[in-house]
Amino acid sequence: MRMYDIILKKRRGGTLSAAEIDFFIQGYTRGDVPDYQAAALTMAIFFQGLEPEETADLTLAMARSGDRADLSSLPGVKVDKHSTGGVGDKTTLVLGPLVAAAGVPVAKMSGRGLGHTGGTIDKLEAIPGFRVSMDNRSFLEQVRRINLAVVAQTGHLAPADKKLYALRDVTATVDSIPLIAASVMSKKIAAGADAIVLDVKVGSGAFMKKLEDAFNLARTMVDIGNQVGRKTVALVTNMDQPLGYAVGNALEVREAIATLKGQGPEDLRELCLQLGSEMLVLAGMAEDPPAARTRLEQIIDSGAALNKFKEFVAAQGGNPEVADREELLPAAAVLYPVQAKLDGYIAEIQAEQIGLAAMALGAGRATKEDVIDLAVGIVLKKKIGDKISAGETLADLHAQKDMDLTAVEQMIQQAFTINGAPPAQGNILLGKVSGSSVFQFE
Amino acid sequence: MRMYDIILKKRRGGTLSAAEIDFFIQGYTRGDVPDYQAAALTMAIFFQGLEPEETADLTLAMARSGDRADLSSLPGVKVDKHSTGGVGDKTTLVLGPLVAAAGVPVAKMSGRGLGHTGGTIDKLEAIPGFRVSMDNRSFLEQVRRINLAVVAQTGHLAPADKKLYALRDVTATVDSIPLIAASVMSKKIAAGADAIVLDVKVGSGAFMKKLEDAFNLARTMVDIGNQVGRKTVALVTNMDQPLGYAVGNALEVREAIATLKGQGPEDLRELCLQLGSEMLVLAGMAEDPPAARTRLEQIIDSGAALNKFKEFVAAQGGNPEVADREELLPAAAVLYPVQAKLDGYIAEIQAEQIGLAAMALGAGRATKEDVIDLAVGIVLKKKIGDKISAGETLADLHAQKDMDLTAVEQMIQQAFTINGAPPAQGNILLGKVSGSSVFQFE
Repeated sequence: MRMYDIILKKRRGGTLSAAEIDFFIQGYTRGDVPDYQAAALTMAIFFQGLEPEETADLTLAMARSGDRADLSSLPGVKVDKHSTGGVGDKTTLVLGPLVAAAGVPVAKMSGRGLGHTGGTIDKLEAIPGFRVSMDNRSFLEQVRRINLAVVAQTGHLAPADKKLYALRDVTATVDSIPLIAASVMSKKIAAGADAIVLDVKVGSGAFMKKLEDAFNLARTMVDIGNQVGRKTVALVTNMDQPLGYAVGNALEVREAIATLKGQGPEDLRELCLQLGSEMLVLAGMAEDPPAARTRLEQIIDSGAALNKFKEFVAAQGGNPEVADREELLPAAAVLYPVQAKLDGYIAEIQAEQIGLAAMALGAGRATKEDVIDLAVGIVLKKKIGDKISAGETLADLHAQKDMDLTAVEQMIQQAFTINGAPPAQGNILLGKVSGSSVFQFE
Repeated sequence: MRMYDIILKKRRGGTLSAAEIDFFIQGYTRGDVPDYQAAALTMAIFFQGLEPEETADLTLAMARSGDRADLSSLPGVKVDKHSTGGVGDKTTLVLGPLVAAAGVPVAKMSGRGLGHTGGTIDKLEAIPGFRVSMDNRSFLEQVRRINLAVVAQTGHLAPADKKLYALRDVTATVDSIPLIAASVMSKKIAAGADAIVLDVKVGSGAFMKKLEDAFNLARTMVDIGNQVGRKTVALVTNMDQPLGYAVGNALEVREAIATLKGQGPEDLRELCLQLGSEMLVLAGMAEDPPAARTRLEQIIDSGAALNKFKEFVAAQGGNPEVADREELLPAAAVLYPVQAKLDGYIAEIQAEQIGLAAMALGAGRATKEDVIDLAVGIVLKKKIGDKISAGETLADLHAQKDMDLTAVEQMIQQAFTINGAPPAQGNILLGKVSGSSVFQFE
């Protein structure tokens, strides 16, 4: 088998066999297949696409390229969740304790990642004392004991995906739907999940800007799940404005805690209930999503969700008192309000701009080497549809001392559009893809 | 400027500016742009194509990437010829002396190249004593004195093209018409030609298998010439069977000499007269191709062409007596006839198969490191349309001692198709592209 022939076959629109895909992925992981041939193949895939079977084969080949978590010793159906990423997305911090309290075992590996804020792992590190790494035995033992553990993903999980993603990132082939789908699913499969709930975000703050692309991606990932025997459900959700109000690591932990107490922002609560319901159904813990939702609402109302969060924090060495004493979380020195210049209604919030503003404050990483400031960030005071008067606060900047905030303030001003009339309001949940069915909501 | 943005722009079907193309080519030549980004860009070009202006810009950028021959000190219009390559193509050996004898200055750099037989430079080395390298001053002086010099092309001529071609060769992007066109034309422009005659071959023994592709390539190269101010004419010619009868280095020199004497194969003579006529017209030495042709026929008939060949060989240190004494050329030890098994007419000769058979005998290089055997090769005894009886010779193998010829004989047998009825006969000249006009002949 020769890499040249594999590139040519795909370039001509042919369908690669499982053996050809395996040859590429294992060879590339080992370094036998050079970057330039991998780059040529991924560009050819960008143009010619991949059939569902090829996509599944690619996913499995990447999942097999490194370590695979073995969760078989844990009882029950292990359900994992993945979000394609957005601004202010702290759902994992809420969902983990929420579904764990409902009896679903959550053995989660999360990333740090580049972006507007840190990943779930960075956010958890905002909790004093919290440890994000532990050995495999302790990890499984903790899940068995309290139904929940979250650790930092290692480089040995799907290393082929890691290497290929880095290459795609510098050769302009990131936005290929089958390649994105295979990348996400390979990590979830290597991480050992039996079932997967996907949160595919679409809108100004998401990677997918168009609804059609988001549904395609959801469809492709669900198809992979079906093909490789992991029950998979994808929700397509709105990311036209940041999720909740907080953007920044410690700020988001605070908002997640509020949500676990039943006092969080409506959109975040709704999204967590929707995703959580799917997780409960996949885990066999509820008949259908409405029944699951009722159960999850009870778990929040009873305080069981918050208690599970405290138990989880304590189990990983963190101080569980953060749940009741916000001041234990790192806080920024400066609170700087950005004020509206017009009267009217918030018509639009460019989520990506808000994310970039948070990054400018130090909340995210532009390169792997950047150090995150866990305390800084942005807290919106208004969201789409809210009424506002000139002089009222649009958002608070949480910043470090002595930082010139002129540019960041301007980014926030530009992110908001204020109109005379109230805008039409959309739902957070736009659609659902599972099995062979697709629902698109109004 | 970032290479990433250039790849993305082309991937999306955008038109690259001259500055962007220059950034890529100069960066790639220096090694600042890595192979994987160049591979991604060339694959994107394969799918999205290049506009005529982009193709011209790419050509000029590659031509500027290394040394450029300065022929301005030579009087007259310097006309170069290029063939896209075929089996048994020895036209340069005939055309050089022929048009030089007509007064056209020919200052030619030729390649060795990979393939069924060697390149022009290898063929010339079959002449005892012939030197293919000389310093620039002697090169120009020889052209000034006798109108003809042929030297081996150095690596400093269009190094960007050399590097990019090697990359395309391992990433399955060789067969992109704008990239082929830019590759050919960049070398011709760097070699200093004022005007260029292109021989674009099409058929079973050519790189272009389809007439449409050959015309596209011809059109693209002529457009480049027009855009960069070099008068360019392309002839589209038939390569459905080897050109002439001889395939192999010394064997082809022999056939070229016969053609210069007016005793060569009809197709080779016709092709040389056609290409030579275009060269004379571009050089301003003839009013139109018919007038040029008459002149070239006289030059052959008068012996002036053969004399120019002798003069040329002597000037480069070779023994001019080869022109009259064939036995001075290297000869193979074994002459092995391959006999027909059927009566009938030759309907087809798979030129590429004949080329591969010659390579199997040692006449060509599969890798750069291979050493060519200048004496070996194949001499066809029959061509398309010829009548044959079982037991008659189809071709003679010229081989070295002790070689098992079974496999090569079988290749030759398979290359010939013998039918009961005589086939339709085609012309060697299929079309002509010049200026903005295209002629396609029957």
